Amino acid sequence: MSRIAYVNGLYVPHREACVHIEDRGYQFADGVYEVFSLHRGQMIGETGHMERLAHSLSELQIDWPVSRRALSILTREVARRNRVRDGLIYLQITRGVARRDHPFPENAESALVITARRLPALDKQALRSGVGVITLPDIRWKRHDIKSVSLLPNILGKQQAREAGAYEAWLVDDDAMVTEGTSSNAWIVTKDGELVTHNTSQAILNGITRLSVLEAAAEAGVKFSERPFSVEEALSAKEAFITSSTSHVKAVTSIDGKTVGNGHVGELTARMLDLYVEFIEGKGGPSKTDTWN
Amino acid sequence: MSRIAYVNGLYVPHREACVHIEDRGYQFADGVYEVFSLHRGQMIGETGHMERLAHSLSELQIDWPVSRRALSILTREVARRNRVRDGLIYLQITRGVARRDHPFPENAESALVITARRLPALDKQALRSGVGVITLPDIRWKRHDIKSVSLLPNILGKQQAREAGAYEAWLVDDDAMVTEGTSSNAWIVTKDGELVTHNTSQAILNGITRLSVLEAAAEAGVKFSERPFSVEEALSAKEAFITSSTSHVKAVTSIDGKTVGNGHVGELTARMLDLYVEFIEGKGGPSKTDTWN
Repeated sequence: MSRIAYVNGLYVPHREACVHIEDRGYQFADGVYEVFSLHRGQMIGETGHMERLAHSLSELQIDWPVSRRALSILTREVARRNRVRDGLIYLQITRGVARRDHPFPENAESALVITARRLPALDKQALRSGVGVITLPDIRWKRHDIKSVSLLPNILGKQQAREAGAYEAWLVDDDAMVTEGTSSNAWIVTKDGELVTHNTSQAILNGITRLSVLEAAAEAGVKFSERPFSVEEALSAKEAFITSSTSHVKAVTSIDGKTVGNGHVGELTARMLDLYVEFIEGKGGPSKTDTWN
Repeated sequence: MSRIAYVNGLYVPHREACVHIEDRGYQFADGVYEVFSLHRGQMIGETGHMERLAHSLSELQIDWPVSRRALSILTREVARRNRVRDGLIYLQITRGVARRDHPFPENAESALVITARRLPALDKQALRSGVGVITLPDIRWKRHDIKSVSLLPNILGKQQAREAGAYEAWLVDDDAMVTEGTSSNAWIVTKDGELVTHNTSQAILNGITRLSVLEAAAEAGVKFSERPFSVEEALSAKEAFITSSTSHVKAVTSIDGKTVGNGHVGELTARMLDLYVEFIEGKGGPSKTDTWN
């Protein structure tokens, strides 16, 4: 079966799916995106994704290409046509096609692309292996709360991580605080068993998995604190992990080559993965989704 | 005559010119560009543009899609097919098409798009009118020396300028220094007649027009200094102007609604426009192009 993509009103074979060279997404990174995770046929955190999308579009003054309700139907239809039960739906909206000029065009119509891709089903056993991260200066622009396709610094960071044999790069701001990873949120567990992750602000993207983990923690009575932490604090932490729609809850066992905790997947990290899976299988995603910056 | 675009080896009608939805330029802003100015059939500062392009590609580890020599021929051919003697050539190179994943793909081939557009011939009389600029915090990523398509903060800044009735926005760093405009370099003339523009560093894009003006100034014995200046200094300056491939040398007569100098196009600004036009008509562009960051 060949993959099908949705592009501006049409379902087309993936290999033929294209956008105009003057789509502002291509020339100006003038667009936003969301990556929805599908778990056993269920879309995880759809409400959260849609609300964050609304925030991104609103901050950039990009119109919805179709109604939110229609978008929800289209994402499901793309998953269905690609027979994806476990995997990802990728959705991108740009300001549309216009003769190249910096200011917002008068008459462009927002462009919409949706694709879906199968992935192996969520495998707790496979997730229960630690990864290494490196730290890099956070050289990104200052509006990380907007999920824009302006991802050049992110890919450069991820590439540096891979070249260093690491899984992810944690980005460090001018105050030596870890903001987040290039495509994940960053977490530590303090010596007294408290979860810590950066508070929502323009400095981070508020991850849907991050929100689910926080809500699952609250329900289970696990202590947590939303605040910045330094690389130094992370290095002396008991445990560390990352969260994202594709990595779920993944243990970090080394930072810049230095061992975190005892070098093995932490006890609370493993528990949070269990709680997270239980949470999404029960509720389908976070219910508290009111803060995007 | 309908416009012709060059896209990955083919000359195609502009309205049908497209790139794949998984071109990394579209999904990650993983690409660079150059805008060449054509004046009376002559490409201005071609060597400078090509050397800056080499810098951008090298910093991002993107391969040349064709040789530099072939690229030079292709740009001319696109101009010829579109019968452009005065106007712009737009050239974009991205890391190419690959399944969406942050790290650099193993086997992607760089993508190349070239377009050309006619513009009214350079009109010194028209350029001799002042414009207003506003100032905004510089929220861009920290590698302004790379001419990437990661331009979202630039278009947001330009849009804010237009909504404020201004022509351009000058971007101000954390030290209250003006780095550059959203698509131009920023200049002032001090009380004692010295030209000042930000020195080359990762904080600015070294404009080809900027280089031509500096070289023309040196030849004519006009004093200049390459250093940062503050908004305060600009407001008490005698004159101000911007340079770019499309605005050439354009007087700035107000900053944030406050008059610069006597509110009219400055004497040295007018002279620099004359010297610049003389310079490009004589030499075709800057000869000193060795510093890109």
